[in-house]
Amino acid sequence: MAAMASPYLKASTRHPHSFPKLLKTHPASSFNLRPLPTTRTRPATRISASLIDPDGGKLVELFVKESEKQSKLQQALSLPKIRLSKIDLQWVHVLSEGWASPLKGFMRESEFLQTLHFNSLRLEDGSVVNMSVPIVLAIDDAQKNRIGPFTSVALVDEKDDLVAILSKIEIYKHNKEERIARTWGTTAPGLPYVEEAITGAGNWLIGGDLEVINPIKYNDDLDRFRLSPAQLRDEFERRNTDAVFAFQLRNPVHNGHALLMTDTRRHLLELGYKNPVLLLHPLGGYTKADDVPLSWRMRQHEKVLEDGVLDPETTVVSIFPSPMHYAGPTEVQWHAKARINAGANFYIVGRDPAGMSHPIEKRDLYDADHGRKVLTMAPGLERLNILPFKVAAYDKSQGKMAFFDPSRAQDFLFISGTKMRTLAKNRENPPDGFMCPGGWKVLVEYYDSLAPAENERVPEPIPA
Amino acid sequence: MAAMASPYLKASTRHPHSFPKLLKTHPASSFNLRPLPTTRTRPATRISASLIDPDGGKLVELFVKESEKQSKLQQALSLPKIRLSKIDLQWVHVLSEGWASPLKGFMRESEFLQTLHFNSLRLEDGSVVNMSVPIVLAIDDAQKNRIGPFTSVALVDEKDDLVAILSKIEIYKHNKEERIARTWGTTAPGLPYVEEAITGAGNWLIGGDLEVINPIKYNDDLDRFRLSPAQLRDEFERRNTDAVFAFQLRNPVHNGHALLMTDTRRHLLELGYKNPVLLLHPLGGYTKADDVPLSWRMRQHEKVLEDGVLDPETTVVSIFPSPMHYAGPTEVQWHAKARINAGANFYIVGRDPAGMSHPIEKRDLYDADHGRKVLTMAPGLERLNILPFKVAAYDKSQGKMAFFDPSRAQDFLFISGTKMRTLAKNRENPPDGFMCPGGWKVLVEYYDSLAPAENERVPEPIPA
Repeated sequence: MAAMASPYLKASTRHPHSFPKLLKTHPASSFNLRPLPTTRTRPATRISASLIDPDGGKLVELFVKESEKQSKLQQALSLPKIRLSKIDLQWVHVLSEGWASPLKGFMRESEFLQTLHFNSLRLEDGSVVNMSVPIVLAIDDAQKNRIGPFTSVALVDEKDDLVAILSKIEIYKHNKEERIARTWGTTAPGLPYVEEAITGAGNWLIGGDLEVINPIKYNDDLDRFRLSPAQLRDEFERRNTDAVFAFQLRNPVHNGHALLMTDTRRHLLELGYKNPVLLLHPLGGYTKADDVPLSWRMRQHEKVLEDGVLDPETTVVSIFPSPMHYAGPTEVQWHAKARINAGANFYIVGRDPAGMSHPIEKRDLYDADHGRKVLTMAPGLERLNILPFKVAAYDKSQGKMAFFDPSRAQDFLFISGTKMRTLAKNRENPPDGFMCPGGWKVLVEYYDSLAPAENERVPEPIPA
Repeated sequence: MAAMASPYLKASTRHPHSFPKLLKTHPASSFNLRPLPTTRTRPATRISASLIDPDGGKLVELFVKESEKQSKLQQALSLPKIRLSKIDLQWVHVLSEGWASPLKGFMRESEFLQTLHFNSLRLEDGSVVNMSVPIVLAIDDAQKNRIGPFTSVALVDEKDDLVAILSKIEIYKHNKEERIARTWGTTAPGLPYVEEAITGAGNWLIGGDLEVINPIKYNDDLDRFRLSPAQLRDEFERRNTDAVFAFQLRNPVHNGHALLMTDTRRHLLELGYKNPVLLLHPLGGYTKADDVPLSWRMRQHEKVLEDGVLDPETTVVSIFPSPMHYAGPTEVQWHAKARINAGANFYIVGRDPAGMSHPIEKRDLYDADHGRKVLTMAPGLERLNILPFKVAAYDKSQGKMAFFDPSRAQDFLFISGTKMRTLAKNRENPPDGFMCPGGWKVLVEYYDSLAPAENERVPEPIPA
């Protein structure tokens, strides 16, 4: 497998076998979302004029060339080591494949400050790209002292294996309070990402140019669904699509989602696009404890395709490797920007994207409309078409999910995420037509699989 | 006096007599910074190509035309009233004169969100202007209910006199926590502006188009020094300046400041500018309790000019009507942006601009370098030349303030603001050459004038 420095043009040769194609009738693995046939060859260079350009004009991949790998491994032996956390490694993954293009590594202070204050970066040519969440690497005093006069460091994984080299480093203060306040709009205790990745982190940040030795793999039977932006672009070109609409999710897909996605495609066809393709793009990095884990979500998504709720011919399911911030209007920009780099020119935004409950007050942390509004106003996202999510609910008169019609509100039943989880935990069924039966079964199995303590019958909330 | 709707071109006729000219030899009032001779006439329209354009292309003044004043007063009688706080009134002042151009009134939600998230506003033509602090008006539930279906409200002062009409109003939620976190980068209790103007404010914000009945006056013998951006532009044109360098301050001027400003002018002349003019621009709105009040600062500035420390021929002293946020890197952008609107194309930025101590931790709230860095990166400020403040200190070998020379650090004495205040409170003198004697006397008088409790001898801090 050849790694390369100018990856975009050659990306299709890097992982020639890792393409899933969504074949409904050939469940060759435990997943129905299976890789492309290994014999398929495609031209090494193919740029479609119809795909949106990556931010900064070209996709920035950060892999070491195969020919330089040995010398890098040698070089790393003499460098101070920094051990990466799980989330750090997810960010290395994100950076290495160019989701954050044109970023070339963990942020230096100038990029960090622009991200915090402006949610965007100004490039050398004066153009502006969106960048709303800090992609930074924290180190503590002892690590900083060990680095001393070195200008490069070796980044290693839990087993001390070399992952990457960070060079031309810059070390600057990690003001956690300010980072948290400006990213989340609150400093309340209990923000999941903050507790997981910031509170205990060091008081310094180290930025620099990243050179990644090997593509990041998790060996969890899901790696083949982790398509890089270059691979997704190749796939979209192979399908000759002229409109890619991305749907970010971290929850099971119900028929309301499916209705929305099907309706979006219909709408794009009406607008004159010839072949709109859905990028169904579950988030694969860190999520909070009460979210459904990735492996179960992927099984559920598989069933949704298998049951024909979504059309495999016009859908690409892939995993977005980013960890989740739960930072609402700030984070939704990151979710959208990363999808531009993967070739999406339409982005579906729902109610309260990347939102959650306030950690200590009885309210949502963010205004449910702010994510959509901020997204339409965000610097660097002007090229992206924002598609607001239409509200779907269970239409009792039709026995299926339908777009909410306020003129006959009494016909509609809103099934919240909490309600859905409560039903699944109690092995009860939602109304027919809420979710395909295969998908629902996966959810019930997931809650069955949890430790008994978490699996007790959850009482229905009784209205006071 | 004629009020007008297209104010820029006619601005010079609005306050024909309120120009201070800095005449060292004619102390006609208690201030040496006295108004222009009243007989001076200037052409009604004069636009110099050399002055920087206001943000959005033209200066937005928000005064009601004289001919419409009666009908506006009549209209206001039937509108719900909102009583303005002192700080609200300062923002009406700021908006009315176009310091925040192209803003046309208190922010609607779209402007508020862009300010919080991007520190900038995208205009209809796609261009971007800087806007970093929310200029908003808060109302409570009762006021919101009283407004009900009205689309305009009357803004009144403490005496219930009509100040302005706000029309095409939009009422939206005032999420104080999020506003504070994103503006200050902290939610720690004890932020002066927050305690003064936000904590007790209502849970709604009301935006709209502002029409101000009469220019805001404070009747404190300082109004004639409150030049509007249009008036300042006229004055700069009158002086045929080709470079205006603005110096924002809220502290007494010492000889280190003076050295810097003199040196800046020399530097600009070297760069080829023919007539650089200093805008010495003390902030006149709300300041925290331990800052020296405006009236005393103005007296001190007067002495500095009287003593010849700054040259009146190349200096315009005027009052900037904005209240102070103490929001460091976020606020310094506002301070710079407002001065563009007043015609400044150079902005001097010091260490830790608009900074303060962390309200509950033993450290500065902001990194001392972030203000300058953020300013150079800020969207919408690309046209402004940022001049970093050179560090001046007392050079014992020369007995005067000089730029710090690290090669002979032992010769320099740093006199902090705290040290300066301690000396003045104790009626002691700083080293000769730190501040002109007349200016120092004003400071001592100010501390003498404070209530006895605050005027006790302050012990020198003794090093441990």
